[in-house]
Amino acid sequence: MNLNIKDFEDQINTRRNYVNECLEQNLPPLNSYPPIIHEAMHYAVFNGGKRLRPIMVFEGALIAGIEKEKVIPTACALELIHSYSLVHDDLPSMDNDDFRRGKPTCHKVYGEANAILTGDALLTYAFQLIANNIAINGIQPLNVVRVIKEISSAAGSEGMIGGQVIDLDSEGKNINYDTLKTLHSLKTGELFRASLRAGAILGGLDNEKLDYLTTYANYFGLAFQITDDLLDVTGDQKTLGKPVGSDDKNNKTTYVSLFGIDKAKMLAEESVNTSIDNLKEFGKEADFLRNLAYFTLDRTK
Amino acid sequence: MNLNIKDFEDQINTRRNYVNECLEQNLPPLNSYPPIIHEAMHYAVFNGGKRLRPIMVFEGALIAGIEKEKVIPTACALELIHSYSLVHDDLPSMDNDDFRRGKPTCHKVYGEANAILTGDALLTYAFQLIANNIAINGIQPLNVVRVIKEISSAAGSEGMIGGQVIDLDSEGKNINYDTLKTLHSLKTGELFRASLRAGAILGGLDNEKLDYLTTYANYFGLAFQITDDLLDVTGDQKTLGKPVGSDDKNNKTTYVSLFGIDKAKMLAEESVNTSIDNLKEFGKEADFLRNLAYFTLDRTK
Repeated sequence: MNLNIKDFEDQINTRRNYVNECLEQNLPPLNSYPPIIHEAMHYAVFNGGKRLRPIMVFEGALIAGIEKEKVIPTACALELIHSYSLVHDDLPSMDNDDFRRGKPTCHKVYGEANAILTGDALLTYAFQLIANNIAINGIQPLNVVRVIKEISSAAGSEGMIGGQVIDLDSEGKNINYDTLKTLHSLKTGELFRASLRAGAILGGLDNEKLDYLTTYANYFGLAFQITDDLLDVTGDQKTLGKPVGSDDKNNKTTYVSLFGIDKAKMLAEESVNTSIDNLKEFGKEADFLRNLAYFTLDRTK
Repeated sequence: MNLNIKDFEDQINTRRNYVNECLEQNLPPLNSYPPIIHEAMHYAVFNGGKRLRPIMVFEGALIAGIEKEKVIPTACALELIHSYSLVHDDLPSMDNDDFRRGKPTCHKVYGEANAILTGDALLTYAFQLIANNIAINGIQPLNVVRVIKEISSAAGSEGMIGGQVIDLDSEGKNINYDTLKTLHSLKTGELFRASLRAGAILGGLDNEKLDYLTTYANYFGLAFQITDDLLDVTGDQKTLGKPVGSDDKNNKTTYVSLFGIDKAKMLAEESVNTSIDNLKEFGKEADFLRNLAYFTLDRTK
């Protein structure tokens, strides 16, 4: 790995800007009728997010050997699903958050009813976008349907939504390692995995290689979550853009509360190594994914 | 039309029972992890509903000439989308309803957070079900993707969700005929139309005939809504299973408040006639749809 973190951050930013341009072009126009819901959809999506899931879709396509332009609708769809989940998670009856990345949350701006409907609309539109892939030359309809199956499963009651149910149910309780792993694997891991796989499936990657990407995504997701927990203890509030120490204050079980800082760091490192190991069948086309995992350990936000 | 209403009700009941059996077999098992969300999904779906949307899917398939068994997952998906919309519409921040068809609403039983997630899960699972159609012999993947596009569009921010946004925004306001028509066309019409079209598209019906079904569904939807408004004035609370006079009490603009009972009845009749006229290209295979429209005028619930 000859890259330094500064160069990698440039690579991330280039990709993030590209995702933002794609999102601008792929959401329903702001003035669609009725306007308030379309305004709220834009507000919820353009929230300064990391855009990791669409970036994963593009990397999956690259690894399968097709141009990133061919998977734009699906890349956008994954970000819409992530955005909808944040809008609903922030609601008063869920996490009751007034701010997200320094901006008032969707229900604070548009009211609770509109925020619920905005989440619903983003989720629904995500599937419309994926279906739009049939208009793209070289994409097989069968693969579009496979992707819809994968993503709906990853985002559903036995995936991301199931994770949120467990998370809400775990509030203020001490949970064990297995439950914590399941919680995160469902709540964030499933959608990471589905994102990377979606791009690769649209590009026609074979099942054996898909399995490697799946394992990469599983371990990357784990490392990402552990560093999230670490940043809540060791991070800088200003860089992070959110208060630190909130997990402890909320009595939340985390990798740090279960294992302590040092062992959590070690676990994160092991996960990063395992994730990178699973890319050994791939060449330079997987370099970004290798760096993404590697630099997860150094992230400050 | 030689059928009497009793015979037609038997036809409806046979179909409804069949839909209920299909739903039993096509929801995720009750004991899937985490159990509470899967219990809540079942609770929300088995609510004594009319099952009109899945029935429409089956009729569309029949008209296109394929066996109804081939469109079961899509038929179930349409009912899941309808059920999710009811769960979210009933929430405290929306219509704040404690009962639906005599049973406590989802959030009264499972809490608000779980009810929001249950709606999300039903919507997400609907797309997983439609995608499952690829496993069915004789169904073209391209047609599955077309159906996903149609249904996501019909259920989305410029369809059903848009209708609910307009409905919430119209509360306590006097709205004109055009807005009322748009509201209902989006809130209920779009999903009726998409249901009938979905079955027909999966069966490979040509575009000209699809257009006739679309117009049928539009006018049937209008007639159905007008009779809904009429029943709120002229219906029997016991048969209806809900209080009458609630539109007037809530100062709601309806076809009856705009036109009076007699003219509203006339409008409903005209709509039924136009809907049936649009089926003249079809033979006996469209008889159920003809009867469905015809007997809408006589419905008591």
